[in-house]
Amino acid sequence: MLKIGNQTFESHFLLGTGKFPDFKIQKQAVEVSKANILTFALRRMNVFQPDQPNFLEMLDVDKYTLLPNTAGASTAEEAIRTAHLAKSSGLCDMVKVEIIGDARTLLPDPLETYKACEVLLEEGFIVLPYISDDLVLAKRLEVLGVHAVMPGVSPIGSGQGILNPTQLQLIIETINIPVIVDAGIGSPADAALAMSLGADGILLNTAVSGAKDPVKMANAMRLAIQAGRLGYEAGRIDKRENAVPSSPVEGLSVSE
Amino acid sequence: MLKIGNQTFESHFLLGTGKFPDFKIQKQAVEVSKANILTFALRRMNVFQPDQPNFLEMLDVDKYTLLPNTAGASTAEEAIRTAHLAKSSGLCDMVKVEIIGDARTLLPDPLETYKACEVLLEEGFIVLPYISDDLVLAKRLEVLGVHAVMPGVSPIGSGQGILNPTQLQLIIETINIPVIVDAGIGSPADAALAMSLGADGILLNTAVSGAKDPVKMANAMRLAIQAGRLGYEAGRIDKRENAVPSSPVEGLSVSE
Amino acid sequence: MLKIGNQTFESHFLLGTGKFPDFKIQKQAVEVSKANILTFALRRMNVFQPDQPNFLEMLDVDKYTLLPNTAGASTAEEAIRTAHLAKSSGLCDMVKVEIIGDARTLLPDPLETYKACEVLLEEGFIVLPYISDDLVLAKRLEVLGVHAVMPGVSPIGSGQGILNPTQLQLIIETINIPVIVDAGIGSPADAALAMSLGADGILLNTAVSGAKDPVKMANAMRLAIQAGRLGYEAGRIDKRENAVPSSPVEGLSVSE
Amino acid sequence: MLKIGNQTFESHFLLGTGKFPDFKIQKQAVEVSKANILTFALRRMNVFQPDQPNFLEMLDVDKYTLLPNTAGASTAEEAIRTAHLAKSSGLCDMVKVEIIGDARTLLPDPLETYKACEVLLEEGFIVLPYISDDLVLAKRLEVLGVHAVMPGVSPIGSGQGILNPTQLQLIIETINIPVIVDAGIGSPADAALAMSLGADGILLNTAVSGAKDPVKMANAMRLAIQAGRLGYEAGRIDKRENAVPSSPVEGLSVSE
Repeated sequence: MLKIGNQTFESHFLLGTGKFPDFKIQKQAVEVSKANILTFALRRMNVFQPDQPNFLEMLDVDKYTLLPNTAGASTAEEAIRTAHLAKSSGLCDMVKVEIIGDARTLLPDPLETYKACEVLLEEGFIVLPYISDDLVLAKRLEVLGVHAVMPGVSPIGSGQGILNPTQLQLIIETINIPVIVDAGIGSPADAALAMSLGADGILLNTAVSGAKDPVKMANAMRLAIQAGRLGYEAGRIDKRENAVPSSPVEGLSVSE
Repeated sequence: MLKIGNQTFESHFLLGTGKFPDFKIQKQAVEVSKANILTFALRRMNVFQPDQPNFLEMLDVDKYTLLPNTAGASTAEEAIRTAHLAKSSGLCDMVKVEIIGDARTLLPDPLETYKACEVLLEEGFIVLPYISDDLVLAKRLEVLGVHAVMPGVSPIGSGQGILNPTQLQLIIETINIPVIVDAGIGSPADAALAMSLGADGILLNTAVSGAKDPVKMANAMRLAIQAGRLGYEAGRIDKRENAVPSSPVEGLSVSE
Repeated sequence: MLKIGNQTFESHFLLGTGKFPDFKIQKQAVEVSKANILTFALRRMNVFQPDQPNFLEMLDVDKYTLLPNTAGASTAEEAIRTAHLAKSSGLCDMVKVEIIGDARTLLPDPLETYKACEVLLEEGFIVLPYISDDLVLAKRLEVLGVHAVMPGVSPIGSGQGILNPTQLQLIIETINIPVIVDAGIGSPADAALAMSLGADGILLNTAVSGAKDPVKMANAMRLAIQAGRLGYEAGRIDKRENAVPSSPVEGLSVSE
Repeated sequence: MLKIGNQTFESHFLLGTGKFPDFKIQKQAVEVSKANILTFALRRMNVFQPDQPNFLEMLDVDKYTLLPNTAGASTAEEAIRTAHLAKSSGLCDMVKVEIIGDARTLLPDPLETYKACEVLLEEGFIVLPYISDDLVLAKRLEVLGVHAVMPGVSPIGSGQGILNPTQLQLIIETINIPVIVDAGIGSPADAALAMSLGADGILLNTAVSGAKDPVKMANAMRLAIQAGRLGYEAGRIDKRENAVPSSPVEGLSVSE
């Protein structure tokens, strides 16, 4: 169960809707994923041009919670403006604050992100900032009142996986709001690892939409997220330096 | 589907039966795992003392293929003797050759393992050797005729996970018999990673039996193995150095 | 050569002066290190109690540039106050801004650090902030005018080494002011790695003062930093997936 | 000090002589490296065609111990034949047994290597086998009587560095003959790491000869090997999960 603000979601899987080969595959992937929350870039939507085809028409939107992001913003001001448009469209009160500070890596700007969250929280939004894996920034945002943090684990779409699992784990252990891993996941193993460390959710986009078979990958990711979560709950064995025989070693050897 | 010799198995999950807290939990974990193949140390079994309680009595053994191992052997001769006992008990023609060459790490002896495989193959056994992640040893064993190789990825029971994924992947890419990861897996993420790299199966014991909740962990591992396999089939995205936006970047920014 | 502001230093090694077993070992380690810049926590110094013994008395302070840090500060205000004390003591115009936002990990607070740097730069200080490995924060601080950034690579004194070399390299490639690795280095190999990636300097303290033989370790670190720098300049070979024979393979084999 | 058989060497750096841009750079790199032992592929040498130019003519060979390898061999028989040629040339009694079992990765064949070592030891050679990082193979070879083991840490010339430092460390801790890291080192940081873990020597070739500036890289590697060795002797700090302040935290904060 994933709780954001006062909403509760069955699935720990959040799916981004960008860059699928076509609407049909997108729709199938969304269904197979069993995701409850779908994200999209507001500026990619034709919400402002209602005569254009739109991916939302393909989906039964009542079944999903929509989480627009502010992709394209590079300042707090731009992000806030985008969030206002989202709200006025009636789509949602939830917003993923995404303010990019570096074009090559698409890594987020901590200072602008903090400012935008401050304003949007005052205005009553449910705010989920995309951040680096900076522990103290996550703490400061928690104190500010954001509803979840969304640390990236490697650059968006790079598929490099979790470059610093130790740091991700520190964030998870330290803060009490949901930690939703955003950006960088490449394979089901990465997703399982994040969840095994105790993450509350995973947002995926390119890793699914860019796979050779996006629908099958959506299924793989769904299972991996579930597996990682169960593994976290089941309590893994400690890592040990030396071997631990799985067969009792006392007693006579058959060979003796 | 996992093919070993001329047998085919639905599940890619092989479960070791050692060291569960009690027979009941062992039985539940076995059922939840949906494993088709169960391994056990022959010398741990009371096959030779039929008046003693025995884990096989708890299980519907007709549902499972039994894979005894030669744990306790440190020479080819000892391993061969153990395999003969297994055969004469009528339990199976399949044997996991496990010949330990170092007490602290329980790492296998490549020379004795090769010798034992040579003899047992001539005698008609289905032979699955436990080996290090030595690529050329795996190739030599394939040429010799073994039915699968079982590379360890870190010391048995250590839960350190896959210390050298590059090397595991080399083995998987190079040889044409099944590669079943044996020893070292600690978490569902490790299992998903091995399967994502193209492994044909995973043998787990301590990671399940030693978990705080072994039955839940058996379930987590089952899902992780499935997720990794699907991910492998679905074709993951390439790793890239730089970011790849998940939202199209062409067109005007909302903020403009 | 390391350039900070308009000063130039021969050595890329900055040495912290805390926690040596005794003043004599400290002095020897400082000399062996050939460091030009020594850091210390202002609040540890007895600068305000001139009757107390003081490590500076042991050293020929004219040979070294002193870099006081603001350790102990958890807000911009506290850090600024400490910097003012440093200046009024006449010790230096250079300050390492260190504002801790988490007691367990001693990781820095990006928001307070940015604020303190803003004020101290206006006041004419040479400012070197201790930061996480957040790329965009580093860029923002560069724009603000700081004279170097000092990213930590794992928690202070933890000796975990460079948890995320990819991220460190991104910072080095992206910004044009010196990048001095601060916090987390445990062994000469870590120091050599940071320098090989193109870092401009390394600040060490616990890795030297806490070694079994601090003087020998100071020497090891000095050589490692030099080796890493030379390696960076010499241009390492690319990493390749497959092997590249070091002996020409054309021509007849001796064995043929 | 590196002891092999009854010989003692000042330097822990062994340099391969293949593939330098030209003889002059090769000579300079050799001198700068301060290596005492030079390796070369016998089949590359013109030892059998004395009218051909030869790299040995460029060097003062009395200053160096020559370590020919059996590169090009894929069976014990071939390697033994090459070793005999080396001996009859009067160059040396020392031989690096290199028997390749996979063309793509140039990884060694453990079975043929063991066989060749057995024969060559009986014939009185000083034998240094190139092996994978298989711990038990290393132990078996030690028992057989080889004078050092030379584990690869990633494929020859790949520059991938130490793919499995844990395994390398196990070998170093377990056996009592010299462990000389062979193959895979890419940067001074890799060399420092191997030596920090306690390796007795490093054999480099492509990492030096293929660098943009081979002479400078030879120097970098020399320093890195020295740094790693000193670091090993100096006794590094333990790795800790949490931070350890380098400044004493007791006492009043300056800011209070």
